[in-house]
Amino acid sequence: MNIIDGGITSPLGFKAAGVRCGIKKDKLDLALVYSDRSARAAVAYTQNKARAAPVEVMMKDNPKTLRAFVINSGNANALTGPRGIEDAQRMRTQVGQFLNIDQMEVGVASTGIIGRFLPMDKVSAGISQAIKELDRGAEPNIDAAKAIMTTDTKMKTFACQVNLRDGTLVTVAGMAKGSGMIAPAMRTLHATTLSMITTDARLDRDPEVRWQAVMDSSFNVINVDGDQSTNDISAFMANGAAGGMAADDDGAFWEAVLWVAKSLAKAVAIDGEGATKLIEVIVTGAKDDNEARAAARSVVASNLVKAAVFGADPNFGRILAALGNSGSDFDISKVRLRLSNGKSVTLFQNGAPLIIPGSNDETVARSILHEKRILIELDLGVGSGRGEAWGCDLSYEYVKINASYTT
Amino acid sequence: MNIIDGGITSPLGFKAAGVRCGIKKDKLDLALVYSDRSARAAVAYTQNKARAAPVEVMMKDNPKTLRAFVINSGNANALTGPRGIEDAQRMRTQVGQFLNIDQMEVGVASTGIIGRFLPMDKVSAGISQAIKELDRGAEPNIDAAKAIMTTDTKMKTFACQVNLRDGTLVTVAGMAKGSGMIAPAMRTLHATTLSMITTDARLDRDPEVRWQAVMDSSFNVINVDGDQSTNDISAFMANGAAGGMAADDDGAFWEAVLWVAKSLAKAVAIDGEGATKLIEVIVTGAKDDNEARAAARSVVASNLVKAAVFGADPNFGRILAALGNSGSDFDISKVRLRLSNGKSVTLFQNGAPLIIPGSNDETVARSILHEKRILIELDLGVGSGRGEAWGCDLSYEYVKINASYTT
Repeated sequence: MNIIDGGITSPLGFKAAGVRCGIKKDKLDLALVYSDRSARAAVAYTQNKARAAPVEVMMKDNPKTLRAFVINSGNANALTGPRGIEDAQRMRTQVGQFLNIDQMEVGVASTGIIGRFLPMDKVSAGISQAIKELDRGAEPNIDAAKAIMTTDTKMKTFACQVNLRDGTLVTVAGMAKGSGMIAPAMRTLHATTLSMITTDARLDRDPEVRWQAVMDSSFNVINVDGDQSTNDISAFMANGAAGGMAADDDGAFWEAVLWVAKSLAKAVAIDGEGATKLIEVIVTGAKDDNEARAAARSVVASNLVKAAVFGADPNFGRILAALGNSGSDFDISKVRLRLSNGKSVTLFQNGAPLIIPGSNDETVARSILHEKRILIELDLGVGSGRGEAWGCDLSYEYVKINASYTT
Repeated sequence: MNIIDGGITSPLGFKAAGVRCGIKKDKLDLALVYSDRSARAAVAYTQNKARAAPVEVMMKDNPKTLRAFVINSGNANALTGPRGIEDAQRMRTQVGQFLNIDQMEVGVASTGIIGRFLPMDKVSAGISQAIKELDRGAEPNIDAAKAIMTTDTKMKTFACQVNLRDGTLVTVAGMAKGSGMIAPAMRTLHATTLSMITTDARLDRDPEVRWQAVMDSSFNVINVDGDQSTNDISAFMANGAAGGMAADDDGAFWEAVLWVAKSLAKAVAIDGEGATKLIEVIVTGAKDDNEARAAARSVVASNLVKAAVFGADPNFGRILAALGNSGSDFDISKVRLRLSNGKSVTLFQNGAPLIIPGSNDETVARSILHEKRILIELDLGVGSGRGEAWGCDLSYEYVKINASYTT
């Protein structure tokens, strides 16, 4: 696998645009992604029961093929009743008409403030402009990735290339946004991170089960604030423009897709609202992989763990307390907890704390916690299940951002 | 029911003491509660699987009668392995020996920093001193309530009196601590809020089922930070010293117990780490009472709701997003969301937002959110279930407190 500079327009046959339509004051706020041919698609949606209008619209049809995807930021079109549904539907219809493609092959998503009606005159004008600007290359890919940002501080885009078993070179690329209201638990047909992965590989079968597995090991294990969004949606489009063999069963291809998804998910975690540090948790020795993942998620979700990491406080009891709340099985007499980042220190083993206040180990633990990327390794001692999760610390800035989001 | 000034030593036959044993630098850190006769008891414990040593010790025997309860603060004796278990056991044994009562009738609890061994020489000396100072009245009750505090800013104690149907005057009183790591879900035999309710009423039957119901409508619906503690424990002692009829089936008596439990639970919520405001959520129109309570808990548990309340930002979408994550049924077209505190404003109804940015209603909503006590009323429109939950806002101070708890 070869990591390349690029984004969603790197795979053959994809074009994109990002424009200013006026929902936000001075920033790009409408993105359009277009494939020159029908792409086999899988879409994952939030499991929050208070679903945004575009999520409702997409879940109803759950398209198996897509040609285009329109996304606005600055307004989530969530909790907007029948008028919101009409507006989301209208975005699809307009993209379909203007591009002369079946509207059923148009995806729609929104992100931003909840509970406000979309300014449809601005959105419509934005769609027209985006279609005019549709192009392929580096610039539009960056514009599109920027146009879906809300409180994000960084654009999130990744791309890589792999050779299929028959030698065909395929490109996999993705973009994502997400900074707050991040605790996705997306299910295909049944995800406010928005993300989209494009590839020019050819798939002959419905990628839904594979896409769910990719979600479960990427976006579904990140946690910024524990609040699952009304708007999470994650779309995968494979248009086959690279030619060659079908990639359905090609291990290297799915590894590439997983790499893009994980890279985007970690980028969302590190760019969590107010985040100063990335927290990576690797759980081993669990009963099975699901319990390992649940344990890892519980640790990155804990406010107390997040605040301790922010303050570089080696209060490891909070990590184990979070484990205790995960529902996953563990044998406390066999649990091992380590903190590492180049250096490494064991905090808890054989049922008892290993670091003593004022000890050298405690100093090492503090120094690790002052790094920008902290790895928490937790072995549960009851099996061979393994799982990861990623989150960020809880800072003053998080509170500041969220105490005045609508103002 | 008559609310009185007082605390756990107000009911007849109860004595208490609170002493400085040296776990904390300069504060009271060991409390002892004593009943001059055997009291029928029910104890609820945390469901966190990483249980503190005193919780393990208590759950093993789960005593049905109690004469005494010893509680230290400053050190949770949690995640301390076999040595921790021995220490917790030793606290019980010493209290039993010194008071010349069966150690099986002695309860033990700890709260404070996780993962450190108890300084048993100090604890032992503290127990001796507490036994010497055991007394009844206002002073010892205050000392005991102060001795169990950690990051609490206020002592929490309530008392009331009711007449049973036969005219017998009984007193019900309680004390509690709790400020952080607050999301209890205590089950009798199977609750870091610590709380204890004493009464001189006589009970002839095991109060476990009643106690669980009291827990489920009081401590189990508060949320400061979503982190269920390793140490939560809640004990109820009824010693019968008031004489008269048995109170097992006396409605007024259980109302009094519930009042004390609710008052303590709300006091914990308002004294949540860094809290500036109390958030009360009342959910009506749910499928049943359990779903109503689950919905209310989900709203008070949301970091985004908490941060918005801190900033007095009427970002009601976050409330409905939290509802969507609760798992409880609702009909979004019938959901009604109101904010009140003397004044009242409806934010969402008929499937759509009612307040418009810049409107008078939005100004009213902001002014309500500037109060110290905010009531969120949510009707789900699918049944007649009703439930409440209480929490606090998420402030800069919360982050500050928890970024440096062990230092």
